[in-house]
Amino acid sequence: MLKQVIVVREDLDLPLGKVASQVAHASLEAALQAGKTRDEWRDAGAKKIVVKCGDDTTLRELKDRCVELGLPCYLVRDAGHTVVEPGTLTALGVGPGSENRVNRVTGGLESV
Amino acid sequence: MLKQVIVVREDLDLPLGKVASQVAHASLEAALQAGKTRDEWRDAGAKKIVVKCGDDTTLRELKDRCVELGLPCYLVRDAGHTVVEPGTLTALGVGPGSENRVNRVTGGLESV
Repeated sequence: MLKQVIVVREDLDLPLGKVASQVAHASLEAALQAGKTRDEWRDAGAKKIVVKCGDDTTLRELKDRCVELGLPCYLVRDAGHTVVEPGTLTALGVGPGSENRVNRVTGGLESV
Repeated sequence: MLKQVIVVREDLDLPLGKVASQVAHASLEAALQAGKTRDEWRDAGAKKIVVKCGDDTTLRELKDRCVELGLPCYLVRDAGHTVVEPGTLTALGVGPGSENRVNRVTGGLESV
């Protein structure tokens, strides 16, 4: 089973539309890195799960873990025109990849 | 200016994580239809706006309008494993395309 998990910071208390756009940004950019796996994942329904973490340090650590495992990933740095300061890290797309490998990065995180 | 607008149904009262995953699904699939425009849009920051509409009839009408205008679009039909009935239409990705053309479809809709 292939899946993608998108991790979003809950400490920023972003409004719903902002969360959704940050998640979409992370999802798209991570997916575009995935090559052939992307199409297998999409053919199987493109499973996407949104989970939360508490701060930007955690987001960076999770990203490092993706890199170690060779998983496609993308860390969103917001341009900060509206809700947050420019350069704020808001979300991380993890995968698509096998459920087992993705869980090695995001397995401990709660759903939103 | 290129942008993408994602329309989500507010009448379903979906939980935050579900809204975000539906928006991401619509965004990715519409973007994958966009060809060269996709990369111009991403190079310019991949502007994404999330707006709402009241029911599935409106979503279908907006999709028809995209098709008339030749805008990339994708209507999400949820598999319904968890929160909604199988086959429920939840969200529509519009564009990326020029701000002017995208606004001809989504200009009247409020931000989430």
